[in-house]
Amino acid sequence: MSTVLNVAAAAAEGETDQVVTPWEVTGAAQGGVNYDKLVDQFGCQRIDTASRTSRPDHHITSSAAGSSLPTVIQLTDDEKFLWKDLSIAESKRLARENAKDIIACGFDVERTFIFSDFQYVGGPFYENMMQVAKRVTFNTIRGTFGFTPEDHIGKCCFPPVQAAPSFASSFPHLFGGNDQLRCLIPCAIDQDPYFRLTRDVAPKMGYLKPSLIESKFFPALQGECGKMSANDPNSAVYLTDKSDIIKEKIRKYAFSGGQSTTELQRKYGANVDVDVCIKYLNFFLEDDAEFEHIKKEYKAGNMLTGELKDRVVGVLSKIALAHQNARAQVTEEMVDAYMSG
Amino acid sequence: MSTVLNVAAAAAEGETDQVVTPWEVTGAAQGGVNYDKLVDQFGCQRIDTASRTSRPDHHITSSAAGSSLPTVIQLTDDEKFLWKDLSIAESKRLARENAKDIIACGFDVERTFIFSDFQYVGGPFYENMMQVAKRVTFNTIRGTFGFTPEDHIGKCCFPPVQAAPSFASSFPHLFGGNDQLRCLIPCAIDQDPYFRLTRDVAPKMGYLKPSLIESKFFPALQGECGKMSANDPNSAVYLTDKSDIIKEKIRKYAFSGGQSTTELQRKYGANVDVDVCIKYLNFFLEDDAEFEHIKKEYKAGNMLTGELKDRVVGVLSKIALAHQNARAQVTEEMVDAYMSG
Repeated sequence: MSTVLNVAAAAAEGETDQVVTPWEVTGAAQGGVNYDKLVDQFGCQRIDTASRTSRPDHHITSSAAGSSLPTVIQLTDDEKFLWKDLSIAESKRLARENAKDIIACGFDVERTFIFSDFQYVGGPFYENMMQVAKRVTFNTIRGTFGFTPEDHIGKCCFPPVQAAPSFASSFPHLFGGNDQLRCLIPCAIDQDPYFRLTRDVAPKMGYLKPSLIESKFFPALQGECGKMSANDPNSAVYLTDKSDIIKEKIRKYAFSGGQSTTELQRKYGANVDVDVCIKYLNFFLEDDAEFEHIKKEYKAGNMLTGELKDRVVGVLSKIALAHQNARAQVTEEMVDAYMSG
Repeated sequence: MSTVLNVAAAAAEGETDQVVTPWEVTGAAQGGVNYDKLVDQFGCQRIDTASRTSRPDHHITSSAAGSSLPTVIQLTDDEKFLWKDLSIAESKRLARENAKDIIACGFDVERTFIFSDFQYVGGPFYENMMQVAKRVTFNTIRGTFGFTPEDHIGKCCFPPVQAAPSFASSFPHLFGGNDQLRCLIPCAIDQDPYFRLTRDVAPKMGYLKPSLIESKFFPALQGECGKMSANDPNSAVYLTDKSDIIKEKIRKYAFSGGQSTTELQRKYGANVDVDVCIKYLNFFLEDDAEFEHIKKEYKAGNMLTGELKDRVVGVLSKIALAHQNARAQVTEEMVDAYMSG
């Protein structure tokens, strides 16, 4: 089990209180999550310029339609039920709503299979769950996820559910017995513990280890110190927000690295490393050259916080409106088509 | 969790080393399993004369066809895979062979649903598994089954699989949404820990607790000190054994309560409380009056061990032959019919 790192313990013993698990993200007091440290702990490699192609990187919303490989999307409604105070019916309903948002991003229905665990667990998928479960001890998941003996056993049952889609044999209707395919999993870095477990177990099951591309967290409006919270509607801009709401949220809540007055901003410029609007533009502005220009001007004090915020409101409003329109086109029949085996 | 008794701990703290779990049965040194103690620990009630009807009790092999209620039979091939050194394919194959033996006993195909976990887990059944899992802690199953943190998590995943068939909602195709039915589970007493858990959880899920009828263990040929072992073919008479094998096994291995010589037997009679042939006749002889007569005569020394053994060989050979003939009639299509949802 040498490749399974002990996240919870590492956090407890390390110099900071950083804890990153799928259910808890607590960064160091200043500057949010220390990604350098995570990269080290989790044994990741950075994706740097050398490892990219010469083509411009895919923009976040256009990457969806860009895959020429079969794409499988797991909706973990069982995880929602096990960790939150929700009924199974409500968890399943939310999964279906999630599916609509995903479909609205423009996935090719011919090459995309979206499933919810409550719908799909069974058959070969359940067999792979048990293959994983037989090879992982309670001690290992305690070390990996920080579970305690007081936790309910649903938590022990879940990591194998998250692991099973890494194996093509879980989807015979998609891969037709071609079980030696390597799976590529794009996810946020907090999901890494699941897949360290999976990579540890895969060779013992006779399968290839899955590969991962792990992203940083999308920052909350208030800054990098953690994830956005569903309990605080002002911690994030929602895809369902109308333009005026987006404007209010960005103006009022987006943590600024700019100075407190126009004069000071002109004189000293902004701290772009902590500025949330700069971070949002980094994710969402299609034009890389424009982004670098804005960042430079804002840092130099040639651009004011209000101007930056207006640009962000414009970019986000356009994306939100486009998504709202696309989502309004998604019918129940389309959901069924993506979710049918 | 007050109704969940701690089997492993009770055994460790009690006066004897009696351990009774679904995977381990270790009786006290003398006389095998102490059922009085188990009845006490598990909170069971004896089925005495007062709790029976005036009709003669069903014989073991005729009880199968006698049920007028829908019967659901769970084949726990996942449990076999998780606890034994078997592949999933082999566990599934064995489950199908089990199904053939069960079908040969004469169940009504219209009222019987036989399923294997690897085949059926999913949908509403998986939902009930998660409903159970969310309400049971690792500490509870550690106390109930003796699991340790070094055990693989498949063991934690399994009790909810065993619990789910207690709820009619796991089988919508059989009970059509009539979810407030009480389930009656006939089983050997070592399965009790699963269903104590289930009874504890059922009301929290809004369902009725299942009722249980628990049997004693069928004794090994060598006597009552534990279960029969699949590793020792001479510890049991198999339904596949031919007459001559049965004769040899009973003559050579059936533990006798009779005296060592004819003279001593005539003089002192037999100890019928430890005699395995008497126990087997108690299970298998249809005629209760004849059984009481044999027991009395053997105890009094009017019947010799050889005579008793011949009677047992006759009874068992007849049952085995009938089963072998019935089983030879069971086709793959019949198995499919019983196992189709």
